[in-house]
Amino acid sequence: PTILDKIASDDYVAFTFFVGAMAMMAAAAFFFLSMSSFDRKWKTSILVSGLITFIAAVHYWYMRDYWQMNAESPTFFRYVDWILTVPLMCVEFYLILKVAGAKKSLMWKLIFLSVVMLVTGYLGETVYRDAAWFWGLVSGIAYFVIVYEIWLGSAKKIAVQAGGAVLSAHKTLCWFVLVGWAIYPIGYMAGTPGWYEGVFGGLSLDVVYNIGDAINKIGFGLVVYNLAVIATEKKQ
Amino acid sequence: PTILDKIASDDYVAFTFFVGAMAMMAAAAFFFLSMSSFDRKWKTSILVSGLITFIAAVHYWYMRDYWQMNAESPTFFRYVDWILTVPLMCVEFYLILKVAGAKKSLMWKLIFLSVVMLVTGYLGETVYRDAAWFWGLVSGIAYFVIVYEIWLGSAKKIAVQAGGAVLSAHKTLCWFVLVGWAIYPIGYMAGTPGWYEGVFGGLSLDVVYNIGDAINKIGFGLVVYNLAVIATEKKQ
Ligand SMILES: CC1=C(/C=C/C(C)=C/C=C/C(C)=C/C=O)C(C)(C)CCC1
Ligand SMILES: CC1=C(/C=C/C(C)=C/C=C/C(C)=C/C=O)C(C)(C)CCC1
Repeated sequence: PTILDKIASDDYVAFTFFVGAMAMMAAAAFFFLSMSSFDRKWKTSILVSGLITFIAAVHYWYMRDYWQMNAESPTFFRYVDWILTVPLMCVEFYLILKVAGAKKSLMWKLIFLSVVMLVTGYLGETVYRDAAWFWGLVSGIAYFVIVYEIWLGSAKKIAVQAGGAVLSAHKTLCWFVLVGWAIYPIGYMAGTPGWYEGVFGGLSLDVVYNIGDAINKIGFGLVVYNLAVIATEKKQ
Repeated sequence: PTILDKIASDDYVAFTFFVGAMAMMAAAAFFFLSMSSFDRKWKTSILVSGLITFIAAVHYWYMRDYWQMNAESPTFFRYVDWILTVPLMCVEFYLILKVAGAKKSLMWKLIFLSVVMLVTGYLGETVYRDAAWFWGLVSGIAYFVIVYEIWLGSAKKIAVQAGGAVLSAHKTLCWFVLVGWAIYPIGYMAGTPGWYEGVFGGLSLDVVYNIGDAINKIGFGLVVYNLAVIATEKKQ
């Protein structure tokens, strides 16, 4: 096979890899190029949104090619992407709340939890597939601690103190984590053996992950962008 | 083999080349795009941090492919990368101290020493492998003169005169050179024949070099970035 072979019209994995790569590239260009319109304080947040989509664009391009050549899930590159982009999303949470006095320790806590979530997920998908349910469970617990931390823990308190546009952006991001991120465990259950096979077995792990990434990476960035627009307009 | 062949799950060289390429790309985008947020005086330093990681990103992408196709160390491209990026790091030292009155001669001295260090290292790794210990020793001497120059020599005096954030950034960079750069001779000893084989023979030269590059290129740049943030905030 070559990279330019015909794509079967029902090869939704190839399709979503291609569209995903393109969308991530466009999103990265959008964030990078609109950066200069904002106050210094917001520039870094927009830049991080750009980095998340840029890193994804490169990985998607690569994963698209890998799928085309090997007709196999590029699990390894998927997790390399996540291990870079999910911690950057934790940085975004911190950057938004920094203006309201968030401490670096909050950022490191979220980063640590996200690394635990991803490393255990990787182990379940690759090395210990037979115990995928167990590693998925550990990963899921780390995920829930993140959800708790931002919805009800210290991050929530700081957001309430900040109020206004920061609070409402924080709230939207919380919904992304609760609903948007919940797409991933579905992909995981669709692609690993376990009692849940009957429920999600019909879905393709890659298609589910690709949809999740498009929503979360681009959507997350747009929420931050929107906050920067509101905050900059108010000052003028 | 093709560039898109499956990567063995224990192929740490391929792994670190891939992650390295990605991290260098993201770092270059970060430095290039944040440049405009700083005072004119610091813009050039941030730009140089961006160039160092950008040059590395291109080489890493190439070295990744080279490793995939030949399963052999891309020594030649490694040194092409270093011969461009290490002198640029010497330029960074100079740029930081320029505000405190450093002269161009300091920069040229450091550049000269780093070229000696790299050319002799290359000879030891390739042309005169049988006398690798000798060329490594000469390279190491040049390295020690660099260490002396920045820790105790004229660079140190200027940094002390400058004081404040410049002094503390200079100090951090000095630690990078003393500890971070010391990773490279370990890689060299792991990858060349010599009496030291028994000690470092188990390590992979490429993995060690890749870890060293990630720490030194990105870390070095972030120290400079941090200095620019502090210096810019103070003025406002
Ligand atoms: C809970 C859980 C998982 C969660 C993954 C998540 C939440 C990934 C989020 C990725 C994002 C947000 C990427 C966007 O850049 C895994 C690892 C699938 C394993 C099964 C259990
Ligand atoms: C002392 C010594 C070496 C030192 C290499 C160094 C210090 C390289 C630094 C590279 C950097 C900092 C690259 C980042 O951009 C060699 C040539 C391995 C040969 C053995 C002796």
